[in-house]
Amino acid sequence: MSGLATDLYQLTMAAAYYLNGRFERSSFELFVRKLPPQRSYLVAAGLEQALEYLTELSFSDEEINYLRGLPVFRNVDEGFFEYLKGFRFTGEVWAVPEGTVVFAGEPILRVTAPLIEAQIVETYLLATINFQTLIASKAARVVESARGRGVIEFGARRCHGFGAAIYAARAAYIGGCVGTSNVEAGRMFDIPVFGTAAHSFTMAFDREEEAFDAYFKVFPESTTLLLDTYDTIEAAHTATKYGPQLRGVRLDSEDLTELSKGVRTILDKAGMQNTKILASGDLDEFKISKMLDDGARIDLFGVGTELSTSRDAPALGGVYKLVDVEFDGRIEPRMKLSKDKATYPCRKQVWRKAGENGFFTGDTIALQDETMKTGIPLLVRVMEDGRELFEGPDLNQMRRHASDQLLKLPSGFRRFESPDNFPVKYSQELEKKRLDLMREIAADH
Amino acid sequence: MSGLATDLYQLTMAAAYYLNGRFERSSFELFVRKLPPQRSYLVAAGLEQALEYLTELSFSDEEINYLRGLPVFRNVDEGFFEYLKGFRFTGEVWAVPEGTVVFAGEPILRVTAPLIEAQIVETYLLATINFQTLIASKAARVVESARGRGVIEFGARRCHGFGAAIYAARAAYIGGCVGTSNVEAGRMFDIPVFGTAAHSFTMAFDREEEAFDAYFKVFPESTTLLLDTYDTIEAAHTATKYGPQLRGVRLDSEDLTELSKGVRTILDKAGMQNTKILASGDLDEFKISKMLDDGARIDLFGVGTELSTSRDAPALGGVYKLVDVEFDGRIEPRMKLSKDKATYPCRKQVWRKAGENGFFTGDTIALQDETMKTGIPLLVRVMEDGRELFEGPDLNQMRRHASDQLLKLPSGFRRFESPDNFPVKYSQELEKKRLDLMREIAADH
Repeated sequence: MSGLATDLYQLTMAAAYYLNGRFERSSFELFVRKLPPQRSYLVAAGLEQALEYLTELSFSDEEINYLRGLPVFRNVDEGFFEYLKGFRFTGEVWAVPEGTVVFAGEPILRVTAPLIEAQIVETYLLATINFQTLIASKAARVVESARGRGVIEFGARRCHGFGAAIYAARAAYIGGCVGTSNVEAGRMFDIPVFGTAAHSFTMAFDREEEAFDAYFKVFPESTTLLLDTYDTIEAAHTATKYGPQLRGVRLDSEDLTELSKGVRTILDKAGMQNTKILASGDLDEFKISKMLDDGARIDLFGVGTELSTSRDAPALGGVYKLVDVEFDGRIEPRMKLSKDKATYPCRKQVWRKAGENGFFTGDTIALQDETMKTGIPLLVRVMEDGRELFEGPDLNQMRRHASDQLLKLPSGFRRFESPDNFPVKYSQELEKKRLDLMREIAADH
Repeated sequence: MSGLATDLYQLTMAAAYYLNGRFERSSFELFVRKLPPQRSYLVAAGLEQALEYLTELSFSDEEINYLRGLPVFRNVDEGFFEYLKGFRFTGEVWAVPEGTVVFAGEPILRVTAPLIEAQIVETYLLATINFQTLIASKAARVVESARGRGVIEFGARRCHGFGAAIYAARAAYIGGCVGTSNVEAGRMFDIPVFGTAAHSFTMAFDREEEAFDAYFKVFPESTTLLLDTYDTIEAAHTATKYGPQLRGVRLDSEDLTELSKGVRTILDKAGMQNTKILASGDLDEFKISKMLDDGARIDLFGVGTELSTSRDAPALGGVYKLVDVEFDGRIEPRMKLSKDKATYPCRKQVWRKAGENGFFTGDTIALQDETMKTGIPLLVRVMEDGRELFEGPDLNQMRRHASDQLLKLPSGFRRFESPDNFPVKYSQELEKKRLDLMREIAADH
């Protein structure tokens, strides 16, 4: 991965650190200050791509020449560019496993590395973790709304470019989707792929039935017919000619709930009880809940734009903040005081407690080296000296982990509107460190 | 580019077309049905990447083997996979140049190609044009709000992955930004790159002034100091020690308008009239307008999340619809009738009229082969037989084109809230074709 995949100031700060002889190790924590509106939890995702980036990060000669040619770098000492030639990430990384449920303020990932390295990687780590966590979290909501019916990620065409589409599909799968329509994502991550047919296919034939015949002939065991190009109910009657072998039908417009009831009746009367009804068309967790409340007879939901761009909350405000700097083996805590943007200093660990019934009861954000009497720690060391410590879990394990975590989160914290706030507190020792440091900074001024 | 960068149904439909001997040429038009809330125009972008995709599109053996292994393709005739081996896009493409202002219903791009080819490319074309057009359009609003002051795209960390960040930077530049913080985008597209320093840099030193010294020493001619890590006004006083050579200062929190006035006074008193004030921190077109109305002394705006994810309207509903199919040289129009999703048939051209003062007065969507007495046609043929017809404009030309187009759009159509609707009508001939076809379809049923 290109070392230029970052913001310019990371590289100018790197030069300033380098040319001022600042090579101390430092720790940065990535966390979300405040959850987006109507989000009560996040499902962490994107770690695999983050670690891949850290492992492969380097600067090619061409990239270094580009930097050298920028006006801002014109008079910068050549030593810095020589340093970039050999640049590798050599740090340590702790993170919560993908699929872990996390809350505001909790570190999702921590980097400990020489200042320059820790700084350069900020932008890419944030872009990666923010986005996949955003989509996995939205997916979890949509999947919950479907009450056990499958949700398929259908949003590639509305994603922020095809690159975003690939990782949206991955994150949506972690968040509980049964698969995606995105073939490249399917191939890259071994995600089940799903598809039906488009209106254009029907329209390319003179009559709808001709189009249905043409498709069924090629895919007799896996045809899902799109019914709403002309008249959905009429098309459902046409579909009965294929009998119980017909895998499914798709409804994509008008009143999906009412149509699903009508179509179900038509299919059932034709002995096609096993033919599934898939619905699509601007769906989200609220519409799906409403449809199921109203008795919709839908087996699968194809969800695009709302899921794949997290349209109601399309950006996650993850930040990456300096928490300490190490001078000659002495670790000095650091914090930011800016109003509304103040941070907690020191490397942290999150401890999660559960009741006897297994349900989560609350989290404590503590100092990394504190040991809590109860609960389990969420952050795990995943990288040391720039090398991954173990092969991460596969995508299906992450997906099961997310599902397991969500089951243990009491339902009040999972409500789609006005959810309860999950109790997250800071340990006494961490609060004390923070106050001490605030006093120290105030005294310095 | 991988042929798998698409939705599964494009490939199953491709197989159905192939195995039913359907190789007719067909035309699909990409347009936006309805503009997002509070958008009164769009700035088209993404064509260069779309054409690059069409030029490079193919299926590797590995990709074909992946498809062959999918359950849905299990019994599909081997002929289809042989066909994919030699697959190239051979079609014709018409499009509006990047930077062109477009409105709802107007084709941004049209593909005419054998059904299979035209269908497979849908997903990638939509993802590309939807996203870049979305961001260029948002950028145009933010840039307008800055009333001539520079806007820098700062959003990489909140984008939908780093891939999205690269194209957000490109589109934002077309939409009028002066540059980006994204170095990789700068290198790829020769976009000016900008940067300042982060809070972490200040915090890595014992005292703020030490951090300022360390940075200024390395970049004496291009230092922009971040002032708000501890106390902005105090930091502004510290900054005066660097004198008029200091390029700029950045404010990133609290009341940016009031702080800018205070900081401006401090700098001016120190004879630093040329030292620029850059503001950042969750800005958008509304906040910038308000700040300038309130007399903010800000020279440059760094805009991130709101711009780079188009947070208030994060998805563009571009669609790609079949408009005709060619049988033995006879072109048959096609349209979709679904309620709320009906389309206009036939290949189209958009004619834009301007008054004597140069301001745009209205558009007419006409049949491709109609010639209007007034106005100029927007769609240009850019690809024939799968080959680009000419080297496209460079990014600066696109940016000037957008700026020129926006200047010609009367201000009522550019208001940020409740803008007027720009007059777009369909030609009589096109309306007639549509009614004829509707009658024909109704008669067939």
